[in-house]
Amino acid sequence: MADLPLAPGSTIGILGGGQLGRMLAVAASRLGFDIAILEPEKDAPAARVAAKAVAAAYDDPAGLEKLAKVASVVTYEFENVPAASVAKLVEMGVEVAPGAKALEVAQDRLVEKTFLNANGAPTVAFAKADSAAEAVEAAHQVGAPALMKTRREGYDGKGQRWVEHAADAAAAFEALGGVPVILEAAADFVRELSVIAARGRDGATAVYPLAENHHEHGILRRSIAPAQVTPALADQAERIAARVLKGLGYVGVIGIELFEMRDGTLLVNEIAPRVHNTGHWTMDGCEVDQFEQHIRAVAGWPLGPTHPTARVEMLNLLGEEANDWRRFAAEPETRVHLYGKRDAKPGRKMGHLNRVKAL
Amino acid sequence: MADLPLAPGSTIGILGGGQLGRMLAVAASRLGFDIAILEPEKDAPAARVAAKAVAAAYDDPAGLEKLAKVASVVTYEFENVPAASVAKLVEMGVEVAPGAKALEVAQDRLVEKTFLNANGAPTVAFAKADSAAEAVEAAHQVGAPALMKTRREGYDGKGQRWVEHAADAAAAFEALGGVPVILEAAADFVRELSVIAARGRDGATAVYPLAENHHEHGILRRSIAPAQVTPALADQAERIAARVLKGLGYVGVIGIELFEMRDGTLLVNEIAPRVHNTGHWTMDGCEVDQFEQHIRAVAGWPLGPTHPTARVEMLNLLGEEANDWRRFAAEPETRVHLYGKRDAKPGRKMGHLNRVKAL
Repeated sequence: MADLPLAPGSTIGILGGGQLGRMLAVAASRLGFDIAILEPEKDAPAARVAAKAVAAAYDDPAGLEKLAKVASVVTYEFENVPAASVAKLVEMGVEVAPGAKALEVAQDRLVEKTFLNANGAPTVAFAKADSAAEAVEAAHQVGAPALMKTRREGYDGKGQRWVEHAADAAAAFEALGGVPVILEAAADFVRELSVIAARGRDGATAVYPLAENHHEHGILRRSIAPAQVTPALADQAERIAARVLKGLGYVGVIGIELFEMRDGTLLVNEIAPRVHNTGHWTMDGCEVDQFEQHIRAVAGWPLGPTHPTARVEMLNLLGEEANDWRRFAAEPETRVHLYGKRDAKPGRKMGHLNRVKAL
Repeated sequence: MADLPLAPGSTIGILGGGQLGRMLAVAASRLGFDIAILEPEKDAPAARVAAKAVAAAYDDPAGLEKLAKVASVVTYEFENVPAASVAKLVEMGVEVAPGAKALEVAQDRLVEKTFLNANGAPTVAFAKADSAAEAVEAAHQVGAPALMKTRREGYDGKGQRWVEHAADAAAAFEALGGVPVILEAAADFVRELSVIAARGRDGATAVYPLAENHHEHGILRRSIAPAQVTPALADQAERIAARVLKGLGYVGVIGIELFEMRDGTLLVNEIAPRVHNTGHWTMDGCEVDQFEQHIRAVAGWPLGPTHPTARVEMLNLLGEEANDWRRFAAEPETRVHLYGKRDAKPGRKMGHLNRVKAL
C-alpha cells in the first residue's frame, strides 16, 4: 500500500492521457512528483509531459500491472474508466482515488440521480426506462418536454435527445440505440452554475467559488468566475458539495453542475468525479488551481486555499479556433492554455483562454 | 530556419535538464509546445516532464544533431553551455536564443564587466590578472579588500575568494588554480537587488518589479518581491535592463543582479543570460511568470504582462530542508515547488517556497 502522504519523488499514475491528464501531470510535477500515464493512444497530450507512459487499453491486465509497478497512487481523468480496472489496481495494492464508489455513481445516470436525491442534493424529477413502452410511461411520469439520456456513456451532449411529447418517447428510445435510459424533467433554470470542490484523505473539504457556465450545442463554451451570486446561493452550493463528497467517501476534486432555478434553489444537473472544464479558470484565478488541489488530495496532502485572486472569463477553444493563437497571445489580459493535440477536429477541445481581470 | 512566431505543437529544445529546464518545460507545455531536453544525465529533472530527451554531453555532435532534428528553436538553462555547441546548432539552421553574444559575455567575468561599463551599466572597479604578480598589481589598483574571481566558470560562490590586503593577492591567485582572474573592488552596498527582464524577437522589452535578495554562503536564500523601492530606483533598474538587453541583442529572459549603494545608485553585480533564481517569485506573483515569458520570447511570441499580483517571499530549499515538505504543504500561504531531484546533497537547490500575501 502507498505510504501517505505521498512523498515527493514518488510516481502518481493517471488513467487517461488527454488535456485533463496533461494539466494534472504539470501540477504534480510542480510538487516534485513523477507521473505515469496509462492511455491507449501513443503520444497522447499527457504522455508528452509525463516521466512514464504505458500505451495500453484501460482494461489491459499487462498495462495495469505495469502502471501498478511504478505508481502507488493512481487517479483518473475521466469517469468512464472500467470499474474492473480500478478493482484490479486496488487488488494489486494501489490506492485509487477518487475511488470505486464515485465511478459507480458517475457511470450510470440512474444510480447518480438516485444517489444525489438520497444524499440531500436535489435534482429534477426523473424516471428510468429499459424499453420503448417504459419510455412512454416514464415520459408521462416526469412530464414532457423531457430530456432522454442513455444511462451510461455519453458526454458533451452526446447520447441524449429531447422528447417534446410523451408519445415521441418510444422513437427517441430507439434512436438512442434501445439501451437503458433515463428521462429527466426539463429544468426551467435561469442559469447554469457549477461548483468545484475537493475532499482530502482526512475528510477535510475545500470549495472554490461558483462558476457561471454557458454551453453551445451541448459543449461548454464559456465560464465566468467567481459567478455573481448571493451568499445564500453560495451556501447552498457548499452544502450540496459537502453532502456529495461525504456521500461518496470522495478523495480528490469533483465538478458538480448545477441549475439555478427561478425560486433561488439549486438542482444538481450532474457530477463529474474528476477535475472539470468549468474549473479551468482556477489556473489563473486561484493560488492553488483544481489540478494541484486534486493531486494534493489523492496524494494525501492537506488541501490548499480556494479563495479567488482574480476574476476570470474562461473560453474553450474548439477545433480550428485554436489556430488563432497569434491573436490570443497578443492580448495582455489573456492567458493561453493549449493542449498539444495534433488534430483540430470540429468541436474538439484544443485549449482554453483565461481572460483575467482584477477582483 | 524556424518559422516564427513558433506554432503550438512545435518542439523547443533546452540545453540543460535541471530545475530551470524543468520549469521552462512546464511553462512551454502550457502553451502547447513539446520540449526536447539535451543533458548528459539520464532521468534529469527536466527530462522527466519533456516529450523528448537526448542523453548526451553538451558538445556531443551526434546529440546536437538529434536535438536539431526535432527542435527548430533551442534555448539554454545555464550560461556555461559550450559556445561551439551553440555555433553548431546555428549552422544546422536552428534558432538559438538568447544567442551567442549573451553567452560570450556571461562566460567571462572580464568580458562581462567590460561590456556592462561600455553599455552604461555601471559596476564596481575591477582589474584582470593572468599571473600572481599581476594579481598583486590589480589588488593595488582596485584597492583592498577586493574579491578575486576566476574569469570563467564558478557559481553560487564557487571560484572566488576575498583578498584582505594587496599582498595576499598572489596566494589567492594560486589558491584559485592559477587561472585568469579578475579582482573586483568591494561594494559597500546597502542591499542586494535583482531585476528580471525580457526582450522579444521584435525588440520589445518587459521588466518585472525588483526583488530584494539575501544570500548565505554565496547561495541565494531568500528573495522578497516586489522589493520596497523608490520610483527613481525602479527607473534606474529599468534603464540598466534596457541597455543590457539592447547591447546584447538579447532574446529571452535575463537576470541582472544589482547592488544598491549608499548614495542610491545601482551597480550591476552580474548578469545571467537565462531565467533566474531571484525570479522564481513570479510563478505565484505575476500572471505570466519568468518561465512562460522566456518561452514566449524565444518562440517569437509577444511578451506578457509583468505587473505583480501578489507580494511573495521566495525561500530556497537547500539539501535536506526539502524533507520538511509535510510542514510546508500544510501552510495555507505557501506554494510548494519541488524539482524532483533524487539526491539531497548539502547546499543543493531541491525546491523553493513562495509565501504569498495580498499586495
